[in-house]
Amino acid sequence: MIVVKVGGAEGINYEAVAEDAASLWKEGVRLVLVHGGSSETNKVAEALGHPPRFLTHPNGMQSRLTDRKTLEIFEMVYCGLVNKRLVELLQRHGANAVGLSGLDGRLLVGRRKTAVKYVEDGKVKVHRGDYTGSVEEVNTGLLRLLLEAGYLPVLTPPALSYENEAINTDGDTAAAKVALALGAETLVYLSNVPGLLADYPDEGSLVREIPVERIDEPEYMALAQGRMKKKVLGAVEAVKGGIKRVVFADARVERPIRRALAGEGTVVR
Amino acid sequence: MIVVKVGGAEGINYEAVAEDAASLWKEGVRLVLVHGGSSETNKVAEALGHPPRFLTHPNGMQSRLTDRKTLEIFEMVYCGLVNKRLVELLQRHGANAVGLSGLDGRLLVGRRKTAVKYVEDGKVKVHRGDYTGSVEEVNTGLLRLLLEAGYLPVLTPPALSYENEAINTDGDTAAAKVALALGAETLVYLSNVPGLLADYPDEGSLVREIPVERIDEPEYMALAQGRMKKKVLGAVEAVKGGIKRVVFADARVERPIRRALAGEGTVVR
Repeated sequence: MIVVKVGGAEGINYEAVAEDAASLWKEGVRLVLVHGGSSETNKVAEALGHPPRFLTHPNGMQSRLTDRKTLEIFEMVYCGLVNKRLVELLQRHGANAVGLSGLDGRLLVGRRKTAVKYVEDGKVKVHRGDYTGSVEEVNTGLLRLLLEAGYLPVLTPPALSYENEAINTDGDTAAAKVALALGAETLVYLSNVPGLLADYPDEGSLVREIPVERIDEPEYMALAQGRMKKKVLGAVEAVKGGIKRVVFADARVERPIRRALAGEGTVVR
Repeated sequence: MIVVKVGGAEGINYEAVAEDAASLWKEGVRLVLVHGGSSETNKVAEALGHPPRFLTHPNGMQSRLTDRKTLEIFEMVYCGLVNKRLVELLQRHGANAVGLSGLDGRLLVGRRKTAVKYVEDGKVKVHRGDYTGSVEEVNTGLLRLLLEAGYLPVLTPPALSYENEAINTDGDTAAAKVALALGAETLVYLSNVPGLLADYPDEGSLVREIPVERIDEPEYMALAQGRMKKKVLGAVEAVKGGIKRVVFADARVERPIRRALAGEGTVVR
């Protein structure tokens, strides 16, 4: 079982991702796709006169401020535009894909964080009423039902809160939760860079491998900082949780999943 | 088994539809929801600077001109905004809903009509390159899989063409095809009027019943004209195909499905 997360940044070759996924599926490889849609959400939100706003948290991370209107735009792009584009491309390449959000069949359930701390003018403030949260439960029942019947599930945020509200949730973390819940061997993160870059955006600084047992050594500790912190720590947690390897790889190329499986990119094991 | 089509016009009480559907589902009634989203698609298309255009066909029917950009807006609204709104509301009312488009699992497959005849300035012209078509096959396998596992499917156009392209398709017809394919007893059409009106928009002119065996009599033939033609003929065809009754009813009220099942509206049998 392979879980592939396709990022939502500019430059993703959806056609190549779908062709590659469909060809693996036709060979009998069981896989689940999880996707994002952030850059297109920004564009649609701008066009609809509700431009995106981001909060910077005290730990330096950023997240999308998600009021109800933003949540609806998010759903239009993630569940409508991007999910159905991928399902259509997969069907075209012969894979019987089924697109689902975290709401469907309570696939991704989590805790809504109504009060979000953020930093503005050097001060920590609290934003209330946000529709965001983190995935805590994966309904593997529905996923296994579909996988055993031969379908290729294509998943996307939002998730469902315990109070049954749609919540914007981090797709990378959701993909890791899905991979862990399904006992996947490999988790692949495809984005618009060749993997984790020690010196972003210098693609020559690609980190080939992160051995989890050496994550505490200075060389690797340095990687788990700044913009890569969440990705590196998430991957380390996934591997410690039982995933054999996590690969960060390029989604701008032909056969992006097969290349990732062959080790092209950053391999965390 | 009941199939309920929820129209996409202004005034639909989605909250009431979801509450009613969930309460029936919790009583063990098997049901499938099918929904539209036309009025919201018009609004989003306007807002995105790609206003809706409609073609009038030689038989007097109208349809949405669907270029690729319109198809994507259609998917955003139908599969993103409306589908996930219904799924979220159903989950809130305790029904484990799963939202799906006709692309997912090849649920609704049909013929793309690339050349569409239309009338302009009194002349019949041909519009090419449209992404529209009619549903010819329903993949009951996926629907039965979900129904037997206890989920409440919520379906929406688009459908998938035989060439694996997403195509805009009429939701009323799709709902009838789904009802026939599943061998449903009752097919309910909910909209923003109390049923079929002999003298639209006079709600006092509600037609209580259309007996299929008397459809050839002048009183009923008169109903099967103009704007109601497709609805009446579609219902007659569904009943002849084995559906016990088709009910056209009001979606602006509380408990709209139960009222329809109790015969409030227009009953075709």
